[in-house]
Amino acid sequence: MAALDPTIHQPIRLSIMAALMALEAREQMDFTSLRELVQATDGNLGAHLQKLEDAGYIAVEKTFVGRKPRTFVAVTVKGRHAFQQHVVALREIIGG
Amino acid sequence: MAALDPTIHQPIRLSIMAALMALEAREQMDFTSLRELVQATDGNLGAHLQKLEDAGYIAVEKTFVGRKPRTFVAVTVKGRHAFQQHVVALREIIGG
Repeated sequence: MAALDPTIHQPIRLSIMAALMALEAREQMDFTSLRELVQATDGNLGAHLQKLEDAGYIAVEKTFVGRKPRTFVAVTVKGRHAFQQHVVALREIIGG
Repeated sequence: MAALDPTIHQPIRLSIMAALMALEAREQMDFTSLRELVQATDGNLGAHLQKLEDAGYIAVEKTFVGRKPRTFVAVTVKGRHAFQQHVVALREIIGG
């Protein structure tokens, strides 16, 4: 059995990682865009981002745009590698 | 976000379904072969097969070969359709 990464396999985290992988190098995605993409609540998205950050797969930057707190997220080199390995494992299982 | 099927997405069930999908029409796979394939314990595999059977995705046949009880599993038409939809959703997320 190919080694699926449980941190990435969870559907919302899989979608987050795929979205971040699609960005240009050093580009970030903001929390609101991610929330719309994965259709999660703030709390749910926050919990999944925390898990990905704990694994070292994403870097989270909290900053202010004017007076508004904003959160920006990017995939790390480690996360990029882990996602690619996960996709290899997935393809081994589902074919193609 | 594409509709991943949580019944199929779980790694062991994804592997079970992929293995059954690879069989010829009306062919069955026996419990022992499945267990070796997914590297699960009897109890763990049994629980996952039960979930897939409850969803109508597989048909489980318990029979005797000589005096030995044997379990054979096959994917149903409903299961085949659900797996194909799941793979479409997965590919939408991971690309390719």
